[in-house]
Amino acid sequence: MEQQKQVHYSDYLQLDKILNAQTLESDLLKQHAHDEMLFIVIHQAYELWFKQLLFEIDSVAAIMQKPAVNDNSPELQTVVHRLNRMVTILKVLVHQIDIMETMTPMDFLDFRDMLRPASGFQSWQFKLVEAKLGLKYQQRHGQEYYISQLRQQQIDLIKQTEKERSVIELLNAWLERMPFFDEVDNWTNYKSVASPLPASPNRGGENRSVPFWVDYRYIYASGLAEAEQNNIQFFDAVFSDESASAERQLSPKACRAALFIMLYRGYPILQLPFQLLNGLLEIDEQLSTWRYRHMSMVQRMIGTRIGTGGSTGRDYLKGALDKHYIFAEISRLTSFLIERRKLPVLSHEMEQRLGFVG
Amino acid sequence: MEQQKQVHYSDYLQLDKILNAQTLESDLLKQHAHDEMLFIVIHQAYELWFKQLLFEIDSVAAIMQKPAVNDNSPELQTVVHRLNRMVTILKVLVHQIDIMETMTPMDFLDFRDMLRPASGFQSWQFKLVEAKLGLKYQQRHGQEYYISQLRQQQIDLIKQTEKERSVIELLNAWLERMPFFDEVDNWTNYKSVASPLPASPNRGGENRSVPFWVDYRYIYASGLAEAEQNNIQFFDAVFSDESASAERQLSPKACRAALFIMLYRGYPILQLPFQLLNGLLEIDEQLSTWRYRHMSMVQRMIGTRIGTGGSTGRDYLKGALDKHYIFAEISRLTSFLIERRKLPVLSHEMEQRLGFVG
Amino acid sequence: MEQQKQVHYSDYLQLDKILNAQTLESDLLKQHAHDEMLFIVIHQAYELWFKQLLFEIDSVAAIMQKPAVNDNSPELQTVVHRLNRMVTILKVLVHQIDIMETMTPMDFLDFRDMLRPASGFQSWQFKLVEAKLGLKYQQRHGQEYYISQLRQQQIDLIKQTEKERSVIELLNAWLERMPFFDEVDNWTNYKSVASPLPASPNRGGENRSVPFWVDYRYIYASGLAEAEQNNIQFFDAVFSDESASAERQLSPKACRAALFIMLYRGYPILQLPFQLLNGLLEIDEQLSTWRYRHMSMVQRMIGTRIGTGGSTGRDYLKGALDKHYIFAEISRLTSFLIERRKLPVLSHEMEQRLGFVG
Amino acid sequence: MEQQKQVHYSDYLQLDKILNAQTLESDLLKQHAHDEMLFIVIHQAYELWFKQLLFEIDSVAAIMQKPAVNDNSPELQTVVHRLNRMVTILKVLVHQIDIMETMTPMDFLDFRDMLRPASGFQSWQFKLVEAKLGLKYQQRHGQEYYISQLRQQQIDLIKQTEKERSVIELLNAWLERMPFFDEVDNWTNYKSVASPLPASPNRGGENRSVPFWVDYRYIYASGLAEAEQNNIQFFDAVFSDESASAERQLSPKACRAALFIMLYRGYPILQLPFQLLNGLLEIDEQLSTWRYRHMSMVQRMIGTRIGTGGSTGRDYLKGALDKHYIFAEISRLTSFLIERRKLPVLSHEMEQRLGFVG
Repeated sequence: MEQQKQVHYSDYLQLDKILNAQTLESDLLKQHAHDEMLFIVIHQAYELWFKQLLFEIDSVAAIMQKPAVNDNSPELQTVVHRLNRMVTILKVLVHQIDIMETMTPMDFLDFRDMLRPASGFQSWQFKLVEAKLGLKYQQRHGQEYYISQLRQQQIDLIKQTEKERSVIELLNAWLERMPFFDEVDNWTNYKSVASPLPASPNRGGENRSVPFWVDYRYIYASGLAEAEQNNIQFFDAVFSDESASAERQLSPKACRAALFIMLYRGYPILQLPFQLLNGLLEIDEQLSTWRYRHMSMVQRMIGTRIGTGGSTGRDYLKGALDKHYIFAEISRLTSFLIERRKLPVLSHEMEQRLGFVG
Repeated sequence: MEQQKQVHYSDYLQLDKILNAQTLESDLLKQHAHDEMLFIVIHQAYELWFKQLLFEIDSVAAIMQKPAVNDNSPELQTVVHRLNRMVTILKVLVHQIDIMETMTPMDFLDFRDMLRPASGFQSWQFKLVEAKLGLKYQQRHGQEYYISQLRQQQIDLIKQTEKERSVIELLNAWLERMPFFDEVDNWTNYKSVASPLPASPNRGGENRSVPFWVDYRYIYASGLAEAEQNNIQFFDAVFSDESASAERQLSPKACRAALFIMLYRGYPILQLPFQLLNGLLEIDEQLSTWRYRHMSMVQRMIGTRIGTGGSTGRDYLKGALDKHYIFAEISRLTSFLIERRKLPVLSHEMEQRLGFVG
Repeated sequence: MEQQKQVHYSDYLQLDKILNAQTLESDLLKQHAHDEMLFIVIHQAYELWFKQLLFEIDSVAAIMQKPAVNDNSPELQTVVHRLNRMVTILKVLVHQIDIMETMTPMDFLDFRDMLRPASGFQSWQFKLVEAKLGLKYQQRHGQEYYISQLRQQQIDLIKQTEKERSVIELLNAWLERMPFFDEVDNWTNYKSVASPLPASPNRGGENRSVPFWVDYRYIYASGLAEAEQNNIQFFDAVFSDESASAERQLSPKACRAALFIMLYRGYPILQLPFQLLNGLLEIDEQLSTWRYRHMSMVQRMIGTRIGTGGSTGRDYLKGALDKHYIFAEISRLTSFLIERRKLPVLSHEMEQRLGFVG
Repeated sequence: MEQQKQVHYSDYLQLDKILNAQTLESDLLKQHAHDEMLFIVIHQAYELWFKQLLFEIDSVAAIMQKPAVNDNSPELQTVVHRLNRMVTILKVLVHQIDIMETMTPMDFLDFRDMLRPASGFQSWQFKLVEAKLGLKYQQRHGQEYYISQLRQQQIDLIKQTEKERSVIELLNAWLERMPFFDEVDNWTNYKSVASPLPASPNRGGENRSVPFWVDYRYIYASGLAEAEQNNIQFFDAVFSDESASAERQLSPKACRAALFIMLYRGYPILQLPFQLLNGLLEIDEQLSTWRYRHMSMVQRMIGTRIGTGGSTGRDYLKGALDKHYIFAEISRLTSFLIERRKLPVLSHEMEQRLGFVG
C-alpha cells in the first residue's frame, strides 16, 4: 500500500458532477424562482437514494438466487442486514418530505408551469424499485398514464426487470425449499395439544398422519367465533388451494412455510428467517407511508384541481396506495396466528432440528 | 418568596399516581404476558398527550372567541404558537407508533383476548380532540360502532362539546370579521393586471365596481386549460354559493377571506393569519398521518381477519382516514391559487393598510 | 407558453451526471466492498444538501444586506422562512446519520484504507456554511489540521468568504439599525414598575432620563440572589462595554436591541425579529447536534485508536463541538431574561409604535 | 372465556389517576402560567417511559442471570429484542425534547421560581436506569450535588440497586462463560494467515500453542503505522492485564470474547451475541444523545447564568456527558478491529462449532 495513490474527497465523490447538475428552468426563462433550487436538489437526493436501494435489492436478490443458501449461513444475516438498511433509508426518505413541505403552494406556482410535462411519475428508478421487489405491470394503478409518462427506453428497462426473478419470487422459492420444512409439512410427531380443540378426524394420538397445516387448521378454527367461521375458507384458499391466480405470487407451500416461521420464530434456526419476513413487511410499510405522505403533500401543494383526464395527481397516488403492497400475502398471514399457549408442542427431535439445545 | 414551600419533583408530578397505575390483566389471570406493560404504558402516554392537546385547543378557542381579537394583537401570535406546538406533539405521537411496533403479533396474542372488549376506539379524549376541532357526529365514519364503544357519560361529553363552538366555527367567524376585509371584499382600487385576461364585463379601468373575488374569478379562469373550465363552477360554489350544506362549515365570505390571505400573505398584516391557516392544515395532516400509520400498525398486528360485523379494525380506520379531514375546505383553496406574477396588483393605499411601509 | 419546450424529468434533474458519479475504489482495486456504495451515496447526498444550505444562506444574506430592510417588510418574513427551512434540512441531515450507522466497523474496514487520505474534513462546502454564518478561522478548532486537509483553491475560497460580511455581521448591523430602537435605547417614557426594585439613582418618576438598558440593569439585578450579584459585571460587559474583543461579534448596542426583542416579542412589530433570532439559534443547535452525533458515529466506527499526530478524529470533532457555536452571544442573552410580570410596562405611545392597536 | 369480565379502556388504563395528576403550582398561587401544564405532562410522559425502561432492563437482567443461558436459546433472542425496544423508546424520548423546546425561556420564567427546588435531577427513575445498566456512584459526575437533590429513600433505592448485579456485570459473566470460547481462547487450530505479518516467536505452523488473542496481537500490530505502535500497550492492557481498576468493569477474558464476537460475527452462533453487544452500544449512544440535547435545551432555556455554587445546570449535564458512558469498554474494542481479509482463517472444525454448515 506504500505507493497507493492519494484519494481526495472532492475527486472521490465526483463533486464536479454532483454540484454542477442544477440548472434552473426559471433562470433560463429569466424569471428566477428561488425555490426551484430546492425542488431540483431534493429530487436529486431522492434519486441518489433510489440508486442505493436498487443496489441493495440487487445484492439481496443475488444471494437469494443461490439454491444452496442455507438458512443458517452468514449470507442470510447479510440479507437481513441489508433489508434493515433499506428500511432505515426509507425512513429518512419519508422524513425528507418535511423539507419539500417548506415550499408553499405559491412558491411552487412560481415555476411549476415551466417544468411541464416533467413529474415525479417519471422517476423510473422508483418504478424499478417496485418492479424488482415484485410489483407487476398489471398490478399497477393507472397503467396507461404510467406508460405515457416514461421514455421507451425506460419502459423497456422496467419490462425487462419484470421478466427477471423478483424478490417476492425468490422469497417464494426460498420458502418452498426451506431445508427442514419438507418434513415439517408432512410431519406427524408433534405432541397433541389439549382441548378445547374440536374433534379432528385425524387427531387422536401422538402419531398422526396428517400434515402440519391440516391439523393447524383445526386449532385455528377452534379459536374463531361462530361468525368468523367463514374465515376458514380463506384459510384453505391461502394454504391449500393450488389454483393459480393473477394476484397471487406465493404458493400454498410457501405460505405454509412462512406461517410456520411466524409461529415458531423463537427457535434459533427460525430467527433469521423471521427477521427476513419482518424486514420485507417493514419495507412495504415504509413505502406505503412514503406514498401516503407524498399524496398528502401533493394535495397541499396543488390542491384537488381536476385535471385534463378527469383525474388528479392525488387520485393517482391514492389508487397506488391500496394496490402497490407487494408483500401483502405475507402480511395477511398475521390473520392466522394463534396464542402461543395453544400452539402444537413440538417433539424433542423437532426442537433439536430447529437448533434448540435443551 | 422567602418562605415559599419546598416543591419536590415526585410530589409535584404526583408520581405516586402515575407510576402506580399499571395493573396487568395477564398478571391478574396468572398468565404474565411481558408485553402487556408496554401496551398499558404507551396508551397512558398517548392519553397524557391527548390531555395536553385538549388543553391547547381550549386555550386557542378561548382566544378566538374574543370578538375583538385583533389580527395584529399579541394573542394571535399565541394562537399560532400553540397550534405549532400541537403539530410538534402530533409528530412525536406518530413517531411513538414505532414503539408499539416492537410488539409482534404473537406477543400481542398473549394477552389480547384478556382485554375484550377494550379497544383504542374507546379513547374519548381523542374523539374530543376531533370534536373540539370541528368534526361533527354525522361526519364520523361508523357512527353506530363508535357509539357502541363508549360509555353514556363519555358520549354525553362529546355531544356536549359538539354543541359548543368548535375551532372551525371560530375560524369561520374570525375570517368573516377580518377587520380590513369587509372593504377588500367590495374593493375596487387594485390595479388591473395585464393580459392575458379574458374580457370581463366589469373590467376596463382602474376603478372597477366589482368585488375582488368576482374579478379574481376571471383571472383564475384565464389560467385554466379548456378541459378544466368546468372547475369554474366549483369556484363559484365555494366562493359565492350561499346555500347551506351539511358538509360545509365555512361560509363563502370566510372562504374569500382565506383565499385573500393565501394570495397576499407576504404583507405584514397577513403573515400571522397565514401561519394560523397553515398550522390548522398541519394539524390535519399530522392527525391523518397518525391515523394512517395506526391503521398500518393494526393491520400488521391483527391482520385482516374478518370480524363479527363483517368489518375489521383496519376497515374502520381506513374509513375514518378519508372522512375525518376537518379543515379540508381550507386545504381545497390551494386549487384556486395562481402565479404571483398574475396576481392583481394592490393599490398603494391598500398596501399601507396591509402594513407595508414602502 | 404554447410552444414551450418539453421538459423531461431525467434531463431536468441531469440524472446522467448524478447517477453516474459513483466509482468504487474497491472495484478499481478489484476487492469489491459492498458498503462502499453507501459510503459514496450518503456523502454525495450530504454535499447536495450543503449546496442547498449555501444557496439559502446567500439569499438570506442578500436580503439582510439591503440597508433599507424594513422590519415589517415581506422580505423579513422571507428571511425567517428560509432560516426555518435550513433547520428542517439540518434535522434530516442529523437523521441521515442513522443510515451511516447501518455500516458496521468491520464493513468499513473493508475499504477504509483505500480512501486515504480522503476524509469528511475535506468537505469544503460544510466549512463554507460555517464561514458564511460567521465562524472565523481563528475560532476554528485544530486550525493547522484543517488547513492541511484542504486544497489551496478551497482554502482560498473559504478565506475569501471570511472577508465578506457573514450572517452574524449582518445580524449585528440589522440589530444596530432597528428603526425604532435608537429611540428605545434612550427612551424614557415607559411606566415605572413597582417594587421590589432596589433604589436606582435615576429612578423616581414616569419621566426618567436614563436609557432603557441602564434601568433594566436594576430590575434584573433585583432578581439575582446575593451570590449571583457578580453576574452584574457580566451584564455590564455584554451590554455596555464597548471594548473590542476577538471573540465578540455583536456590539453592546446590538445586544441591547436583541434583548429588547426577546423581552417584548409579544408586540406585533417584534414578532418576526424574534422568529429570526430563534431561527439562528435553532440552526446553531442543529449544527451542534449534527457534530455530536457525527462524533459518536465516528467513535463507534473507528474507535479511539491514537493516530499519528497524537489526536483522534473523535477528539477533533469534540473540540469543534464547544468552539463552533456561532450565535452563542444571542443564546447567552437568555441569562438576562426576567419574569414577564416584572417587565417595565411600556407607555401607550410606545405600544402603538410597536404595532399594538388596543 | 365466556363469562370473562368486561374490560373498559378507561378502567384498564386507570385514566382517573393518570388524567387527574396535573396540579399547576401557578394555579395554586393564582398566577396561572399556561405552559406549566406542558411542563408537568412532558415530565410525566418521561417518567412513564422510564418505568417501561426499568421493566425491560429487569427482564433482560433476569434472563442473563440464568447461568445456563445458552447462546442459541430463544431467550437470547428475547434479550436482543428488548434491548432494541429500549433503543426505540430512547429515540422517541430524544424526539420529545422538540416538544419541550416549544416552551420559550420567557414562558418558563412565568412559573420557574414557583417550582424550587424541584428539578429534573430529582428523577430517581432515570438514575435507576443508569444504575441498573452499570453506572456506579463513584463514576457519577457531581456526586454531592446528586445526593443533595434526592430523598433518603430514593438514595437508598439507588444504592441498593448498585449492590445488585448490573447489566454490565451480567454481560461480563456471560462473556466469560461463552460455551465455545474457553477453547477458542487457547485454541491452536486456525490456519495461519499469510504475510505481511511480522515474525512471531510462536508462529510457524498450523499447530501453534499460543492462545488466539496472543497471536491476534501480532496481526493487529502489523497493521499499525510506526507512530501508533504504542497502541500495542493499550492492547495488552485491555486484553491481558488482570490488575484491577476502579474504572474497569470487564475482565480481559470478557474483552477477548467480545472481540472474537465482533471479528467473527458472520458465523451463525455469533449473530445474536453480536446483536446483543450492538444493542448495548445503541442504548449508550441514545442515552448520550438524550443528555446532549437535554443540555442544549437547558442552555437555551435558562442560559448560562452562574448559580450559587458557581456551577450551572448546563455544566453539570456537560460533565455527565463524558463520564456516564456505561459500555465504553465495549465501544473501545472497535479500535482493535482489523480488515476481514487479514483475519486468521478458522479451521473447518471450528467453523462447524460456530454453526456454519458448509
